[in-house]
Amino acid sequence: MSFTDSSDSRDERPVSILWGCELSSARSSYTFQVPEDWHCEQQLVLRTICLGETARDEFHVVEVVTEDSDSRAPVPLATLKPSVLPTATLAGVELNPPVTFRLRAGSGPVYVSGQHVCSEFRGPPLCVQ
Amino acid sequence: MSFTDSSDSRDERPVSILWGCELSSARSSYTFQVPEDWHCEQQLVLRTICLGETARDEFHVVEVVTEDSDSRAPVPLATLKPSVLPTATLAGVELNPPVTFRLRAGSGPVYVSGQHVCSEFRGPPLCVQ
Amino acid sequence: MSFTDSSDSRDERPVSILWGCELSSARSSYTFQVPEDWHCEQQLVLRTICLGETARDEFHVVEVVTEDSDSRAPVPLATLKPSVLPTATLAGVELNPPVTFRLRAGSGPVYVSGQHVCSEFRGPPLCVQ
Amino acid sequence: MSFTDSSDSRDERPVSILWGCELSSARSSYTFQVPEDWHCEQQLVLRTICLGETARDEFHVVEVVTEDSDSRAPVPLATLKPSVLPTATLAGVELNPPVTFRLRAGSGPVYVSGQHVCSEFRGPPLCVQ
Amino acid sequence: MSFTDSSDSRDERPVSILWGCELSSARSSYTFQVPEDWHCEQQLVLRTICLGETARDEFHVVEVVTEDSDSRAPVPLATLKPSVLPTATLAGVELNPPVTFRLRAGSGPVYVSGQHVCSEFRGPPLCVQ
Repeated sequence: MSFTDSSDSRDERPVSILWGCELSSARSSYTFQVPEDWHCEQQLVLRTICLGETARDEFHVVEVVTEDSDSRAPVPLATLKPSVLPTATLAGVELNPPVTFRLRAGSGPVYVSGQHVCSEFRGPPLCVQ
Repeated sequence: MSFTDSSDSRDERPVSILWGCELSSARSSYTFQVPEDWHCEQQLVLRTICLGETARDEFHVVEVVTEDSDSRAPVPLATLKPSVLPTATLAGVELNPPVTFRLRAGSGPVYVSGQHVCSEFRGPPLCVQ
Repeated sequence: MSFTDSSDSRDERPVSILWGCELSSARSSYTFQVPEDWHCEQQLVLRTICLGETARDEFHVVEVVTEDSDSRAPVPLATLKPSVLPTATLAGVELNPPVTFRLRAGSGPVYVSGQHVCSEFRGPPLCVQ
Repeated sequence: MSFTDSSDSRDERPVSILWGCELSSARSSYTFQVPEDWHCEQQLVLRTICLGETARDEFHVVEVVTEDSDSRAPVPLATLKPSVLPTATLAGVELNPPVTFRLRAGSGPVYVSGQHVCSEFRGPPLCVQ
Repeated sequence: MSFTDSSDSRDERPVSILWGCELSSARSSYTFQVPEDWHCEQQLVLRTICLGETARDEFHVVEVVTEDSDSRAPVPLATLKPSVLPTATLAGVELNPPVTFRLRAGSGPVYVSGQHVCSEFRGPPLCVQ
């Protein structure tokens, strides 16, 4: 059976789907949970953080908290301001869920985008031959 | 038969071609469809988003919608303004077509560039030995 | 013979050399051709676009045309202006030569940099044992 | 035993956890030490450097010192200023600990983020069969 | 012997160390030479270019010259100005030494950072069994 055989019952190819969340003063925190029915190694790979067109001209700081960080302290990732820098590229920051994003400063809206990647099956195999 | 044998009838090498689209108030949405006659795993890998030289000095927000995202909600990718940030680099955002780009704010023109990548043959093999 | 054997007569390692071009109103177009005597799979991997120190304070838009793009229409890659954004990072845009760069707007000078990569030998082997 | 067998007693998969530090005039230097009980090849992969929302409008320069650099001289990595550039993306700068970050100019706060990667087990194996 | 065997006497793992140089009107050129006693394939992978906090508010252009470029002409990589763009990210520009960096415009100081990578042993093996 070749690697590219589409009938492979236990496909090892990474699966990647688009992901995004919005942070604002109304909802200043967002937690990305691991879907329970996904039997795979999962990661959230961040791509960009950008401001909404209605954001006030103030500094917006987005920080992230994960359970696996050394100190579990929040880690600021990007600081944006409409008149200075409305978009920041995050060249592939890889996070292990659960991951919580928080708007440390600013009232938003701020948008975080990334890819939800499923790279290796774990737990019970999807199909046992 | 070696991997580099140019006579390989079922070449597994990824094929990548340049891709781009333009968004403006005249055409604020663009959908990238999978070509039906490409028997391969396809992705759109985004590279840059930039403003045209005639764009008005207002915020332009480009968002993307895919069918595989968790919520199928639009995900804003970049916010640009001529006098602040006329180009954003998207370090390899990988999307599974069909993908729709929308100009959420601003009148453009805004240009999205990327690579249309064909990485693995699926469906009927190109040549059966 | 190991992968690292330096006596390998048909070395499969990618070769990468620095490449650059200049665009201005005097020469607003530049075409990168495939050297005929390179028997390998070639790509142009773009790295940065930056303005010269003498560029006028106007928007400069660099677009690219390749023969393999879906529509063969020019694709704008970056928009620069001395007082706003004098350098854009192109995180590894990969193009298949021949590739033509054009200065769609602005009088330059604008500099495009990248790497000319030779990744796999094709055609007659360089050395037959 | 396949690569994806979750019962593998000596898992070679890289482990990556979120990492961050804060620099300010109160604490202008931070050293990342190798945890002694981690029997693996370790690296610190930098992702972003951003300013706190309370930073003064002055230039902030973050430099890094490692023991393996050619000269052991400090290497400036990014220069930020709230009104000009509040966030810099470091596309995967890979450092071998111990690593010391220093605020060469500015009073902060400045935040450095990255991933602490453990890529290969060394020393005594975690489990001997 | 497996790839990850820590007793491997001829370790194929890439070695990467931090590298940096400073350019100014006092020293407007810097050449990175290949260390003679390193028996390996070497590259200089650039990461960032940033201005010192004392740099004058003028355009600074950093260009690079390598012996392997198509024309051996200098290639401008980044244009910086304190009040506009004090840091540029170079997402992994890979250069083959010897490499010369030159300050084409501006009086500096400008800092170039990167990684000196040794990826494959060549010449006499470090240890012959």
